Amino acid sequence: MKIVRFTASGRRHYGILKGDKVQLISGNPFGGIKLLEDAFKLSEVKLLAPCVPSKIAAIGINYRGHAAEFKHDLPASPLMFLKPSTAVIGPLADIVYPSISKQVDFEGEMGIVISRKARRVEPAEALDFVLGYTCFNDVTARDLQKIDGQWTRAKSFDTFAAVGPWIETELDTSALKIETRLNGEVKQSGNTRDLIFPVARLVAAVSRVMTLLPGDVIASGTPEGVGPMQPGDMVEVRIEGIGGLVNHVATEK
Amino acid sequence: MKIVRFTASGRRHYGILKGDKVQLISGNPFGGIKLLEDAFKLSEVKLLAPCVPSKIAAIGINYRGHAAEFKHDLPASPLMFLKPSTAVIGPLADIVYPSISKQVDFEGEMGIVISRKARRVEPAEALDFVLGYTCFNDVTARDLQKIDGQWTRAKSFDTFAAVGPWIETELDTSALKIETRLNGEVKQSGNTRDLIFPVARLVAAVSRVMTLLPGDVIASGTPEGVGPMQPGDMVEVRIEGIGGLVNHVATEK
Repeated sequence: MKIVRFTASGRRHYGILKGDKVQLISGNPFGGIKLLEDAFKLSEVKLLAPCVPSKIAAIGINYRGHAAEFKHDLPASPLMFLKPSTAVIGPLADIVYPSISKQVDFEGEMGIVISRKARRVEPAEALDFVLGYTCFNDVTARDLQKIDGQWTRAKSFDTFAAVGPWIETELDTSALKIETRLNGEVKQSGNTRDLIFPVARLVAAVSRVMTLLPGDVIASGTPEGVGPMQPGDMVEVRIEGIGGLVNHVATEK
Repeated sequence: MKIVRFTASGRRHYGILKGDKVQLISGNPFGGIKLLEDAFKLSEVKLLAPCVPSKIAAIGINYRGHAAEFKHDLPASPLMFLKPSTAVIGPLADIVYPSISKQVDFEGEMGIVISRKARRVEPAEALDFVLGYTCFNDVTARDLQKIDGQWTRAKSFDTFAAVGPWIETELDTSALKIETRLNGEVKQSGNTRDLIFPVARLVAAVSRVMTLLPGDVIASGTPEGVGPMQPGDMVEVRIEGIGGLVNHVATEK
């Protein structure tokens, strides 16, 4: 099932995508999904980020290839950082290139969307707290990341957390192709089978530290091949079984 | 004016503290303060964290003394990290010592509470976006901070962001004594005149990166003298002109 969030006729809704139709659901998908009769054509709605996270718990260095390209030791436990809710954008929204950075990189990732309050859950039960999966672009001002050492500033600019296009609820994430394309050209090509810490381990580890709330997103880390974008570029994060999240890069106004 | 948030008769309210009375206000303090007739005795209410931040933007290494004790270079611009909303506790609430850490430190700080949406504000106008100031304890699992390099895990545990006891709206922050006491003994004794980046610079710098929302808190950094706490300890962050924020340390249940 593909859960979307969208605006139609000036109002925001959650819905289920079926072919080229979006069927409305009652309320939000976190308390159980109740289909309503109303439907829209997909072409008539504007997709939004499919959830409204209170926080994004992101994981650094979770693919060996990416650890190697950054000459970073493999972490003994998931290496966490946070991206704020104010950074979230949805499909086709602009990633705004801040004038104080000279290098803004894409980082294609799989996003794990939390379904219900998760606090100190065990790996064996962790998937019961997952609503589904989405594409995520952990946009990063690489130059500021190097200057600061801490990653927060580089990764927290408004528009630096692209999420979407929807949440796929039925997905085995043990071996999914994940790609990032810049202007159509494949730049990152990985597979979730290479995650150092897979989904259940991430949910358990993060919830061991901070309570996860419905709609929160865990960004599971990026494979090798990250690289810079320029204003005017189109970037797409594609995950097998989910689909593609497309955004454009714009200059600051 | 001292803005408090509290529960009384099972309901949550914002109010203004006047002597030993808490006078209710209409709605929340972010749209302007309208006093109501109802009042409670301070002794009859339970104070909560005085705001509900969507995020806490915290600043590392913002006092020279603390930079020296951690052998950290002075940053050229404010060094940002985030603490999640789920870490927030109020006055007299327990700081819960996680079993996976062997060293949990206090870090007494001045918290800056944002009054209205702030995006790329200039230092000259920054104070117009500040509702007031509060005490803040940036609780840190020092051992995990050293292991990770990134500070997020160490600083994001539930209960690791103590805020309160209230928001003081009329305060010149250019030279205020700030102290942290552990079981009554002074452990940190600093002065906000030694902030490397003072309040207006912090609001400007953070809002240059991430939009600040009403109720968001900027934790302005800690002076030297940070140190460990143990379960059973009482910790107090005191700031001249504001008051004291007391919390107790408890073991994990």
